[in-house]
Amino acid sequence: MSILVVRQDQKIPEWVTALKQCDPHVDIIDYRDKHDKDAVKMILVWKQPQGIFTDYPNLACVASMGAGVDFIFQDPSYQSLTPMTRVVDTMLVSDMEEFVTAQVFNYLKGLNAYKNNMQQELWQQQGYLRKSEVRVGVLGLGVLGSATAKSLSKQGFKVHGWSQSKKNIDGVRSYEANQLELFLSQSDILINLLPLTPKTEGILQKQLFEKLPQGAFLIQVARGPHLVENDLLESLDSGHLSGAALDVFTEEPLGEHHPFWQHEKILITPHCASISAPSAVAPQIMDNYKRLLKGQALLNQVDTVKGY
Amino acid sequence: MSILVVRQDQKIPEWVTALKQCDPHVDIIDYRDKHDKDAVKMILVWKQPQGIFTDYPNLACVASMGAGVDFIFQDPSYQSLTPMTRVVDTMLVSDMEEFVTAQVFNYLKGLNAYKNNMQQELWQQQGYLRKSEVRVGVLGLGVLGSATAKSLSKQGFKVHGWSQSKKNIDGVRSYEANQLELFLSQSDILINLLPLTPKTEGILQKQLFEKLPQGAFLIQVARGPHLVENDLLESLDSGHLSGAALDVFTEEPLGEHHPFWQHEKILITPHCASISAPSAVAPQIMDNYKRLLKGQALLNQVDTVKGY
Repeated sequence: MSILVVRQDQKIPEWVTALKQCDPHVDIIDYRDKHDKDAVKMILVWKQPQGIFTDYPNLACVASMGAGVDFIFQDPSYQSLTPMTRVVDTMLVSDMEEFVTAQVFNYLKGLNAYKNNMQQELWQQQGYLRKSEVRVGVLGLGVLGSATAKSLSKQGFKVHGWSQSKKNIDGVRSYEANQLELFLSQSDILINLLPLTPKTEGILQKQLFEKLPQGAFLIQVARGPHLVENDLLESLDSGHLSGAALDVFTEEPLGEHHPFWQHEKILITPHCASISAPSAVAPQIMDNYKRLLKGQALLNQVDTVKGY
Repeated sequence: MSILVVRQDQKIPEWVTALKQCDPHVDIIDYRDKHDKDAVKMILVWKQPQGIFTDYPNLACVASMGAGVDFIFQDPSYQSLTPMTRVVDTMLVSDMEEFVTAQVFNYLKGLNAYKNNMQQELWQQQGYLRKSEVRVGVLGLGVLGSATAKSLSKQGFKVHGWSQSKKNIDGVRSYEANQLELFLSQSDILINLLPLTPKTEGILQKQLFEKLPQGAFLIQVARGPHLVENDLLESLDSGHLSGAALDVFTEEPLGEHHPFWQHEKILITPHCASISAPSAVAPQIMDNYKRLLKGQALLNQVDTVKGY
């Protein structure tokens, strides 16, 4: 019986080590090594090679290494009857809260523009916004969205949120599915923290941007395919949006000569808002593995019908 | 009897209007207009032409338009027996709190470096810091320093402060004059909010930087002459300091070809952290003017011996 670790970058050994530290008696396998496929009970995965799940007849759980699971659903070899789990990590949550806070204040005080001005040696005060002068809208009120909304509200921002169903969050006005327009019309800063599903793919497009107030600012920290990239460029260039902080992209790393790279109104970060640290996450993976062997209910199980 | 408004940029009319709105019966004079010098009771001033105070025999109060008063002390025509006031404005205070918060988070999440990377189309995650991982030191615990220290502490940062005498601020460990070294050795982020006096001029120099932990970050939001600019460049280039956010400079606007402009580790903002809005400040100036006429104690009076 074993846990197979699958991802396509250099980080597999770090995950193997972290899991072994939780329990040295459990078999942890790097998928690139020769291994007994029948023995694999759980696959721990991040952006796997497509088709890999078919090879494991006794697979009883697919565990994502992060909060997102879209790449699992998109793999046709994944069978929706196989239980799926994702990571819920307080560090992941607080990292996201802090990253979004940084982007919100960066925008309020125009720090991005001042950095641009340095290249031209331009000394020019520009208007700045105060916390009390902006309304923050959080798209998606799952674990990350709720926590971020709550944290900004505690810091003194006016915050509202939108999700499929109304949520009850301290200090945050909650809108449900059919109130998207009303929600958008009040979002001077729009923070995307939706899960990626067929319903939300491409949701950040022209018609949505047009419903935001003139001069609105986008903070995109969920998944690249939420955003129609050309529509964002149009809305920035027309001046309807005043800027965007983008942490995720359809293609990662962002391609050479992509128009985002040199865009004055965009701040690019390389998908770093919040990253699962193997050592922080390994205990909950191991816990789930043992629950699996004992037939107990799994933690942080994904609803494979809703898709998140 | 009149109030004379003196500054050397385009903002005099705005101040005259704001004061007139407080009381249309008081004589408010733009110093560039012809006027009766004997009638001037109060001079409201920001970076005046040197020597101006000698001309007003009945001057009973010099009022700064901002929180700083260094430029008044530096003018030999100012007589230290003339009462001096400065601005204490809740907006000024909260603007400073927000600006410093923006710079602290900007540093924690490396946003400045990511903006630099965009020019080279460089996709590269770098380490980032969490709120819980840094110790913030506030130099100067006057009105702005205390409020900023308190605000950062409330946000969950570990904060300590240094000032001439020990202060009692919720959640902030306070060090006094002779404990500067101890204070510095714990400041991963150093925020300068000291008043500018002969004692504090040039305080941000090589020996001080060396006492900070390796990789410390400087946020300079007080007055330009606090900083020895070449010493900062050396400490940045040696790698002992990891970066600096500078809002104030010895020469403002910052001169053409100044080495700060193109420095990767520096973020320049054009003295915009916190600016007195005439409409917000005028009422307290008018209030003091009336106190002056009635012989009452003035608000926000400066100790002309201490120099702040």
